[in-house]
Amino acid sequence: MAIITPSLPKGTRDFLPQQMVKRQFVIKTVQEIFELYGYEPLETPSLEKLKVLSGQYGDEGEKLTFKVLRRGTGLEELLSGREEFVIKDYGQLVDEALRYDLTVPLSRVVAMHQSDITLPFKRYQIQPVWRADRPQKGRYREFYQCDIDAVGTDSRLADAETIAIVYSVLSTLGFKSFKIRINNRGLLNGILEFAGVEENQRTPVLIAIDKLDKIGFAGVEREILAAGLGSGKVKEILDILALEGPAETLLAEVSMRCQGVAAVNSGVEELTEVLKYLQLLGVPEDKVKLDFYLVRGLGYYTGLIQESVITEPKIGSLTGGGRYDRLIGKFLGRDIPACGVSFGIERIIDVMDELNLFPEIKTKTEILVSTFDASTQASSIAFAQKARNAGIKAETYFSASKLKKQFTLADRKHIPYVIVIGPDEMQQGRVTLKNMATAEQIGLSEEEAIAYLLKQRH
Amino acid sequence: MAIITPSLPKGTRDFLPQQMVKRQFVIKTVQEIFELYGYEPLETPSLEKLKVLSGQYGDEGEKLTFKVLRRGTGLEELLSGREEFVIKDYGQLVDEALRYDLTVPLSRVVAMHQSDITLPFKRYQIQPVWRADRPQKGRYREFYQCDIDAVGTDSRLADAETIAIVYSVLSTLGFKSFKIRINNRGLLNGILEFAGVEENQRTPVLIAIDKLDKIGFAGVEREILAAGLGSGKVKEILDILALEGPAETLLAEVSMRCQGVAAVNSGVEELTEVLKYLQLLGVPEDKVKLDFYLVRGLGYYTGLIQESVITEPKIGSLTGGGRYDRLIGKFLGRDIPACGVSFGIERIIDVMDELNLFPEIKTKTEILVSTFDASTQASSIAFAQKARNAGIKAETYFSASKLKKQFTLADRKHIPYVIVIGPDEMQQGRVTLKNMATAEQIGLSEEEAIAYLLKQRH
Repeated sequence: MAIITPSLPKGTRDFLPQQMVKRQFVIKTVQEIFELYGYEPLETPSLEKLKVLSGQYGDEGEKLTFKVLRRGTGLEELLSGREEFVIKDYGQLVDEALRYDLTVPLSRVVAMHQSDITLPFKRYQIQPVWRADRPQKGRYREFYQCDIDAVGTDSRLADAETIAIVYSVLSTLGFKSFKIRINNRGLLNGILEFAGVEENQRTPVLIAIDKLDKIGFAGVEREILAAGLGSGKVKEILDILALEGPAETLLAEVSMRCQGVAAVNSGVEELTEVLKYLQLLGVPEDKVKLDFYLVRGLGYYTGLIQESVITEPKIGSLTGGGRYDRLIGKFLGRDIPACGVSFGIERIIDVMDELNLFPEIKTKTEILVSTFDASTQASSIAFAQKARNAGIKAETYFSASKLKKQFTLADRKHIPYVIVIGPDEMQQGRVTLKNMATAEQIGLSEEEAIAYLLKQRH
Repeated sequence: MAIITPSLPKGTRDFLPQQMVKRQFVIKTVQEIFELYGYEPLETPSLEKLKVLSGQYGDEGEKLTFKVLRRGTGLEELLSGREEFVIKDYGQLVDEALRYDLTVPLSRVVAMHQSDITLPFKRYQIQPVWRADRPQKGRYREFYQCDIDAVGTDSRLADAETIAIVYSVLSTLGFKSFKIRINNRGLLNGILEFAGVEENQRTPVLIAIDKLDKIGFAGVEREILAAGLGSGKVKEILDILALEGPAETLLAEVSMRCQGVAAVNSGVEELTEVLKYLQLLGVPEDKVKLDFYLVRGLGYYTGLIQESVITEPKIGSLTGGGRYDRLIGKFLGRDIPACGVSFGIERIIDVMDELNLFPEIKTKTEILVSTFDASTQASSIAFAQKARNAGIKAETYFSASKLKKQFTLADRKHIPYVIVIGPDEMQQGRVTLKNMATAEQIGLSEEEAIAYLLKQRH
């Protein structure tokens, strides 16, 4: 039999145990925090009908969607020697595709399960999505998305809770120097209105502002001028956007400057309410930064927007989200207010690796119970089982062999402790416990060893 | 905008929170038990190269594999008006497919990551697989598989541990009347050898024996006779297979009857060793049943085989597995001994539902903190946060409204307790806690309420 040299599809990854331990750590942490705020789990199929996805992600998204070949197309015959196959209709080949994000499935779920869902529907979803993108560092064709969304509420408290959750997740994972930037799309529109930017001119202006981090104020100015705005207006806008300081000062300032613009007033009011809630939710003031130039793309946001950033390493945002009151009801034909945040879980894992934020564990296994020789094997097996009954994760060395070899296995598997039960230990009902990091060995009764191991946990 | 009536791809499911709570409960339970035995997590991509999957699952499997359309085939033009498209080469359209099982990916991982994997490699993997099967009750096109495998060991202790894990999983999940049937493929072959069945006749005989549960002894006898065996041989075989009794008695009996057949002797020896280990691992004798007529398909098993069954409801096996020493190395070109078990997690969940084995929880959220009115909202938010800091899962009602409406929400979301903080409670720094099941209300200090809620957990 010829041996196939196996390989992975482009842009996909195997996660071996050492990486899985990290991924599970992050996923467990976010999941627990989501649940503390009353968010509940949802899972949707990896496959979605093409008609559900179609038109949702723009032309680019359409191209990046992985389509799945229909069953029974007859195409298989090509494999068995048929020479050509004429396709007249795309739908004949394909009518399903792989999940591209978690938002369209959420909209679909809300429409399809109305009688089983109670609003506000607060769900989290942590599942892979697929994009036929050109793979590069940090960009994969299969990657996990991790979203929380509160569907069916226009409450500012819901907005504030999503920010509190971001704060809790990042600080629990060990991030120190992060900021959560916030803004309000209504306010942003109000500022443009105040400067006299017509509705039909707003899109290019917002696109320009969205690039501030990349092209600086001078660049933004150039682009807005190119969009046909007078330089007076541009100056007025940029002067406001460039304001820096504590949120309250900024809100007072923008209110004063844009007096009488209703959109500004209500934007200021919304942000003020959110800030009040953040205080009650215990989010430190210095972690939240009001940035009038935060846009978060042209997408679908209608109210509060947010993203979290870190200063080191230089990398895009770790989380991002906001309120989007006109998206989730698209399969229902009526608007349903909603807000949410997406956690860039792959990036969070990469950055945590870079910043050494992961706990020192490389395996969950706590002990290797060695097998000294055939005469003591039964004692080793029985001790391993006793340890397991106490909740200790124990691997048993499967057969008697040189202890050195067994220690090497523990080392290679990063198992922190090895238990040895030789004839002496067996006779006395005791064990020797070796700490693999320090090479220290101590003699203990079985019960003492189990108590000792349980104490080593954090 | 026309509204699309959304639907799900055939044979796929959304898992709403109530179902997810159950699924997470089962997955967490199995995962913890796997880890107690030193099994470590692995995840592989949903997509695999067609060349890796090809020829692994037979013709039927080939048909049931979901192929993914290659990017940039030009096919998209069909969508935009091009009239036909001639395909001359299947590979031009397709070179990847969705994961069909977890065993081939494991073989691929073992071949591709030799330097990162230490043998014995004990991994668990819990991920969806996809099969373009005709959907029917209990059979889906996307479903989770849940496998453990110990790769790179021929130890009987490894075999025994997989049985102990099945026992631990099923009893922890609350199954009572289950049995783990075991047998040994070497022994089975030895019995056929003893009865003088030639190597080339063995396959049809094993196929017949494999159907015993369905067609009974008379049926098996008919089929074996049809395969061309003499009636004397058939009787000899069936007499042995029909033996019932304690494992030790059966092993003694088969040894006596088949004296001098090496395959029988070594099969008996292996089973004896496994039974000895099972005792040390604390698996009750009455849960394990030696069944000489257990075959587990013609597949790839070479040694111990096992499956677990329950008496009610009548349903196939919940778990199944065995030793397969000539499969896992196929991408390496050399044999690597291995054993494992697959947990039919979808079926286990279905049966647990039917047998009412799930704990009474329908949501993980523990309290709804109501919002009495605008004047008390801050106290409600602050209390919710205090509860969360104590680890209590708390949803806050987002805006002041009639308490009755808020109680209804808790009811519909199955949240067991509601906290009310009205003006009186606020003034006294106390809360009212309502038990939604009994409608009982008690007044408590904030700290008492938190302590009370923590005590309600199991």
